[in-house]
Amino acid sequence: MKKLYGIGTGPGDPDLLTLKAVRLIENADVIFALNNKGKNMALDTAKPFIKDQKIVFLDFPMGQTKTITYLKAMEKIDQTIGDNESGVFLTIGDPMIYSTFMNMINVKRYDHLSIECVPGIPAFLAGANAILKNVVEKGDRFLLVDDAEKMNLQDVDSVAILKTVKDLDMILDKLEENHFDYYYIQRVSFDDQLILTNREEILNQRHYMSLLLARKSKI
Amino acid sequence: MKKLYGIGTGPGDPDLLTLKAVRLIENADVIFALNNKGKNMALDTAKPFIKDQKIVFLDFPMGQTKTITYLKAMEKIDQTIGDNESGVFLTIGDPMIYSTFMNMINVKRYDHLSIECVPGIPAFLAGANAILKNVVEKGDRFLLVDDAEKMNLQDVDSVAILKTVKDLDMILDKLEENHFDYYYIQRVSFDDQLILTNREEILNQRHYMSLLLARKSKI
Repeated sequence: MKKLYGIGTGPGDPDLLTLKAVRLIENADVIFALNNKGKNMALDTAKPFIKDQKIVFLDFPMGQTKTITYLKAMEKIDQTIGDNESGVFLTIGDPMIYSTFMNMINVKRYDHLSIECVPGIPAFLAGANAILKNVVEKGDRFLLVDDAEKMNLQDVDSVAILKTVKDLDMILDKLEENHFDYYYIQRVSFDDQLILTNREEILNQRHYMSLLLARKSKI
Repeated sequence: MKKLYGIGTGPGDPDLLTLKAVRLIENADVIFALNNKGKNMALDTAKPFIKDQKIVFLDFPMGQTKTITYLKAMEKIDQTIGDNESGVFLTIGDPMIYSTFMNMINVKRYDHLSIECVPGIPAFLAGANAILKNVVEKGDRFLLVDDAEKMNLQDVDSVAILKTVKDLDMILDKLEENHFDYYYIQRVSFDDQLILTNREEILNQRHYMSLLLARKSKI
């Protein structure tokens, strides 16, 4: 049986990998990572624990990934992992939160592959810990979205908004209209982590690796 | 300066502690844990990494915890950590998700204590990884609640419900009315982890360490 692990590598700081993730990376025969022009944040995070394992990049072109892309990636994974070997697929944050890995394994059944996932620290949680603000306290309702247009803030107390770059103005408007206080958190857990609460300063950033954490004002 | 760390110990499996959590526990002068009749799950999780550090239990009686309780706990913490020493307060899951730690530090400012938190894997994420089901895929909205009465499922695609014991019948009714498929996950990440999808089987359990993960049916 071939073994494939989807590993959540967390927000970026190698120190936030779990012991289980580290052990599986160290013992893997092959390491798979998304190909972002030869760069990959999950791979950078895992680097301190990679020795001479084979590293294989998989292509998921942004905006052009279709069913056939996922099937081809799984074919490559299947061909690369030998019998009774194990491969780890590194994915930033947690595999169950907006991950390419799950899109890929959900396309088709793979009965001859044993697939298991290892949770990782999602960026929004690392962000909440960095600003020392509750995501939820007793009785609170928390919403997680990656598309602020579909977000309804009526019946929630706190929210995390990922992929904020595109509609940052609209998102901040919506948060203000609903009386939510917000924090903009960029490159959470890295040395150059940036936390902003001023609207103008936030609008001057618009960094790809950023998120918003917001909470209904207590007035 | 005294240093106090709130450490998320994750769902229970010591293997799901982060490297940072392990390092801070190993190097701490004092370890603080909630007193549940001398037992504590966060402490059990951290046990493999505790050597001869002093362990101090703090009392937060269920349903009787008031402002004075938090102030007394912080006083005890302050008295126990020596100058230039560090203490870790162990908390299950993540410190920003329904934690006593945050209730405690939010009561008053403690300028002579440096407080930092370390994220942990929340039980709902460990659960999603265990059943290999997305919490969110692109465009999805996820809701987290600990009180199902206040939960509005109209504008969300997936939900995690913690502390399900009390109103399990009502919660399952609500999920079914809104056409959500559900998984009941008990003691996630432990050897005796139990996953159920059958309503009657779920109602026969009602375990304190359980949660529900549910997702809008795709029909």
